[in-house]
Order: sequence, then C-alpha cells, then structure tokens
Amino acid sequence: MHTVELAKAFRLLNHGPTTLITSANAGKQNIMAAAWVCALDFKPPKVTVVIDSNTYTRDLIEAEGSFAINLPCVKQIEMVKNVGSISGADFPESDKFAEYGIDTFAALQISAPLVKDCVGWLECKIIPEAHNQDSYDLFIAEVVAAYADARVFSDGHWHFDGHDDLRTIHHIAGGVFFATGQEC
Amino acid sequence: MHTVELAKAFRLLNHGPTTLITSANAGKQNIMAAAWVCALDFKPPKVTVVIDSNTYTRDLIEAEGSFAINLPCVKQIEMVKNVGSISGADFPESDKFAEYGIDTFAALQISAPLVKDCVGWLECKIIPEAHNQDSYDLFIAEVVAAYADARVFSDGHWHFDGHDDLRTIHHIAGGVFFATGQEC
Repeated sequence: MHTVELAKAFRLLNHGPTTLITSANAGKQNIMAAAWVCALDFKPPKVTVVIDSNTYTRDLIEAEGSFAINLPCVKQIEMVKNVGSISGADFPESDKFAEYGIDTFAALQISAPLVKDCVGWLECKIIPEAHNQDSYDLFIAEVVAAYADARVFSDGHWHFDGHDDLRTIHHIAGGVFFATGQEC
Repeated sequence: MHTVELAKAFRLLNHGPTTLITSANAGKQNIMAAAWVCALDFKPPKVTVVIDSNTYTRDLIEAEGSFAINLPCVKQIEMVKNVGSISGADFPESDKFAEYGIDTFAALQISAPLVKDCVGWLECKIIPEAHNQDSYDLFIAEVVAAYADARVFSDGHWHFDGHDDLRTIHHIAGGVFFATGQEC
C-alpha cells in the first residue's frame, strides 16, 4: 500500500470499478457496495457518489460529513455480494464488519474504517449540496487522501497482469460482475 | 441493435465503460470521449455526465438540451483515441465525423447522431441544474431511449463471451484502456 498523489487520484476511479463505501459516526460504522461512484474533478480531486436515502450509510455519512471509497478486487467478490445484499440497520447489536469478518484499518483524515485487502482507497469529505442530496441522492465530495496496492497501481497506472485475483470488479446487476480485463 | 427497456437502461452504464458523447445544434454536430458518465437513477433512468466548460460539446448540449451516450467497443479504440484528443472547434468547416470517417444514424427523440458499430446507445435530455453545471461542469439528464447490440447485450445482461472485439472499454488516462473482462 502506498500513497497516491492527489492529482492522480481520479485514475483509481476512471475505469468505473464497483466500490465499497465505508462510514462511521457516533460509535456506529457501516459498509455498503456502490457502483454509482464517479470522478468529478482533477485538482482538487472530487467525486460524485449516489447513496439512496433508505440506506444506513446515508444516515452515517450525512451526520459525519465524510466517507471512504474502497476498491475491492476479484478475490473479495463474495464479501462484496454479502455487504451489498443486506443493510447495516439489520445488525443493531453488531455491524457488517463483525458479521462477515471484514478486517479494517484506520484512515488518516476521516473516521470511516478502510477495508483490508482492497486495492485502492480514497478518503472523502462531503461538500454539502442539499438540493442534490435531497432531490437526487447525489453527493459531491473532495478526495483528501488516496492510497493503492503497489502490486497493481503505481506511478498513476493500473497494471493487473500477473495479479488476476487483484483485478478490480465492475457490477452489472443482480450479483453479476466483470473483472477489469486486458489492456487494449 | 434492439431497444433496451428504460427500467434496465442503467445496466448499460453500471460497469463504468468509457463513452462517446454526441451532440448537435443549429447545423453543427460533435463527438467527444467521456469517462465521467454514471447512472443516477433507475426509473425514470437518469445519468450524470461531466462536460468541461472548455469543450465544443458543452456549447452544443447547453444550446440543444440533449445529447447521446454511445458505448464504443474494443474494435473502435483508435477512433475513440482520435476523437478524444482534439476539439470539434478545430474543424470550423467540417467536423470530427467527417474528418475521421465516423458513420452515424439518426436518434429517435433527440438531434444528436448515434455512432454506428458502438454496442450501446442512450438518448438523453438534460434536466437543467444551473448550479451543478456552472460550479462543477456536472450535467444531470434523463434517459429517454436506449438501445444495445443484441450480440452482446440482451434481456438486461451483457454477454461478451465469443465477442472480444465487441467488449466495452474503460479508460484510465493517457490513452490507456482496459477491455471489460471475464464474468466473475
């Protein structure tokens, strides 16, 4: 794991991978799968994220004002399906991290935990835009720190050859995913 | 080519492919590459698209209120690089379609031309949001029609096996693309 220069953080998202959104507030934490995550600007790097108003994550990120984008890989696909198919609100005495044995480590600038064994991470602070949030479930956030697994991302480029289990994944619907494929 | 049910149009974009944005207004037309395109809602389907204020496309779509999202595939990658590396404003007497020999066909509900040999198409009408457009170069649009190449997308699912040249593509930066890979 190494730090990604903020000016190149968009390259972690540019190919449209499915993400895991992690969040924490007031002693609660959550993780959800999200495909509707997109780069919005280069410098400072910004992103858009769609978070439905019915989700537990929504409560946490609106209260905390921050969240993390984690980029899962092929070897984590069962975990991604698990956390994407149930709400954190269903575990009032626990959370999805404990239920599914998901290890995390601390972010530097935000409260949300970062998911171990992912291949990219972006720490994000929400830029409040009430109309977008209320009308479209659309959040705009600034990326304040970014990291990647140096085995597959370095010098601003992904290089998955020889690491098929570390390829990022792309969700279509209904639990069907594609791995990021060959360079072309 | 067949019509995609609007409720499933998001599945054309859910895996984060690079797109070609086409536009037309007052006798001018243009095509540009765009990776920052994302689903925003299911029904009616909406999308977000980031279009820099310095682009020729920006002038056309703001004047017309609509644009098309075309999904190029592996066999079109040189064309995608070409149209992504030069502005339509550089061809005052012509346009990128003529310069690069790009064949098109008519959309049904909007003026923008659709690009032949792509594998998916979404006709989009802009939902005016001046603050997003002015502050973030961010456009929200409703998808009013969608189509796909039945060889690789049918019944709401992509199925690229046996059609490697029709796989969608994902741009990282600097002309580096990945093909959509294996289902996992």
